[in-house]
Amino acid sequence: MYLGIDVGGTNIAAGIVDVDGNILHQISVPTKTQRGYKAVLNNIIKVIDELNSKKFDIHAIGIGIPGVVDSDLKTVRYCPNLNWNRCNLVDDLKDVSSSLTIPIFVDNDANLATIAELEVGSIMNVKNAVMITLGTGIGGGIVSDGKILRGFYGLGCEVGHMIIGENFYNCNCGNNGCFETFASAKAVIKYTKHILQRGVYSDCEGHRVLMEILKTREFGAKEVMDLAKKGDALGLDAFNRLIKYLSIGIVNIIHMLDPQKIVIGGGLSNVGDFLIESLNNQIASKHFIKDYPFAQIIKAQLGNDAGIVGAGMLAKQEL
Amino acid sequence: MYLGIDVGGTNIAAGIVDVDGNILHQISVPTKTQRGYKAVLNNIIKVIDELNSKKFDIHAIGIGIPGVVDSDLKTVRYCPNLNWNRCNLVDDLKDVSSSLTIPIFVDNDANLATIAELEVGSIMNVKNAVMITLGTGIGGGIVSDGKILRGFYGLGCEVGHMIIGENFYNCNCGNNGCFETFASAKAVIKYTKHILQRGVYSDCEGHRVLMEILKTREFGAKEVMDLAKKGDALGLDAFNRLIKYLSIGIVNIIHMLDPQKIVIGGGLSNVGDFLIESLNNQIASKHFIKDYPFAQIIKAQLGNDAGIVGAGMLAKQEL
Repeated sequence: MYLGIDVGGTNIAAGIVDVDGNILHQISVPTKTQRGYKAVLNNIIKVIDELNSKKFDIHAIGIGIPGVVDSDLKTVRYCPNLNWNRCNLVDDLKDVSSSLTIPIFVDNDANLATIAELEVGSIMNVKNAVMITLGTGIGGGIVSDGKILRGFYGLGCEVGHMIIGENFYNCNCGNNGCFETFASAKAVIKYTKHILQRGVYSDCEGHRVLMEILKTREFGAKEVMDLAKKGDALGLDAFNRLIKYLSIGIVNIIHMLDPQKIVIGGGLSNVGDFLIESLNNQIASKHFIKDYPFAQIIKAQLGNDAGIVGAGMLAKQEL
Repeated sequence: MYLGIDVGGTNIAAGIVDVDGNILHQISVPTKTQRGYKAVLNNIIKVIDELNSKKFDIHAIGIGIPGVVDSDLKTVRYCPNLNWNRCNLVDDLKDVSSSLTIPIFVDNDANLATIAELEVGSIMNVKNAVMITLGTGIGGGIVSDGKILRGFYGLGCEVGHMIIGENFYNCNCGNNGCFETFASAKAVIKYTKHILQRGVYSDCEGHRVLMEILKTREFGAKEVMDLAKKGDALGLDAFNRLIKYLSIGIVNIIHMLDPQKIVIGGGLSNVGDFLIESLNNQIASKHFIKDYPFAQIIKAQLGNDAGIVGAGMLAKQEL
């Protein structure tokens, strides 16, 4: 058995994972990032202690973080969401808890989602694939010759920062035109607000629905996608823009790496066939050789559990 | 010994290559593409016969073409520059010449330039690297774990068709914004003509120089780059645009693959340190994590011989 721990900006989700990627027991606690690195370390230790108390035979621990991890699978190089920078998470955890003697491995969360799909999900036995996670940002993982490509400096696949055009707002990284400013859940929301403000579709039902929601709370990308599915013009505008840029990003990946499969994960992948089918049509029209075969675009299988399963599978792979 | 044959749109360059990548004897004949596939096959056979007459002990033949080759290293899938489509070059050559019994391997020319640099050039013993050839178009080759990444459908690394923005003219492939429409030699010429026509720098020496050349012939990217080196405003405009988009394309590669080295080859690489230094500064400023280490950008070593040497080294690798 392995412990898989997914440290997100909001929650630490963790579970006991068996060799086949089944989660036998699962817990979640708030990350409380604002209390600082030491406090989060203590929260991770508490999670480990609670799972250890279940008396399973745990061989190793895998931890996913939303940032860049060195290829030593210990050192967090850069993690703005947790406000961590250059820390050896493994050594620091073992310093805090002297009883923590089993091996611990750390990796980027998108790499772990990719490992989960590779070990027990949609790309089992696939040698060359790319996973794209469409969440608040866009993460990526590359499978080359059956293994995760982590890069020379541990940067892995930061495909969300591929520049694909010019956008009406800058990316957090300071550049303009990053893939994730066009094709993430946050990008859908930003663009929809942009056209709401300009009142382009003020006659539409969608305009009225979203303005009503905004009186009490923010709307999500799902609500915009649901409008598109109903054929609402405002929803379709946001959906078509998403597909346009998502297909550009994916065609770029195809033209560069020509993988066998491309797996779409993250919250936006739940739009489902409506998204995958439109995407396939757009990709075919943008491939630089018409009628040339290209990667099958598929939806990730593991959903919200990908982080825990992937962390558990990392521990299994690296032990 | 190996025969290395580089089939270009204009010439077939070929040579006898030893195990260390030295060219012992070299010839070149016109391709005469317009006479059709069979005529070019005969030209290739003539080149092979002439090199064979030198009485070296040849073990295998490598052939490079400016197109997409299947991972069987025999079948040309798509080669618009030679007007070839879905032909088994190896079988067809052996059909034409019954005395041709040694193994023959075919690959994309940018892959072969990469193999040349990997075997005897700038990236010997480097496990993860990307080569970019800046010629009429932009080609690419990816070295992953010490081997060329050829892709699932044999597309390899068609990085020239990565979409990175919006351009004032469309790419031959039908898309707008392809990397090679911004950062190839042809792109430099197209853009320079564009600003010449608009008369933006009509007071500049560069404007007069290029307009004078245009009275008798086309100017080349080298002449524009030479103007930039002299500090001419028109030349610098074209140079700065080249650096802007070349750095975007390279940063995209870094964010996706994080290689150890990026090798710049092709005619434009002869601009030299003036280009490499500007490029490094722009890449550093566009990296999504500031002060993060990134691939060393280096100039290819093999120059015009890369095609022959790479084809010879392919034969050596595959035998």
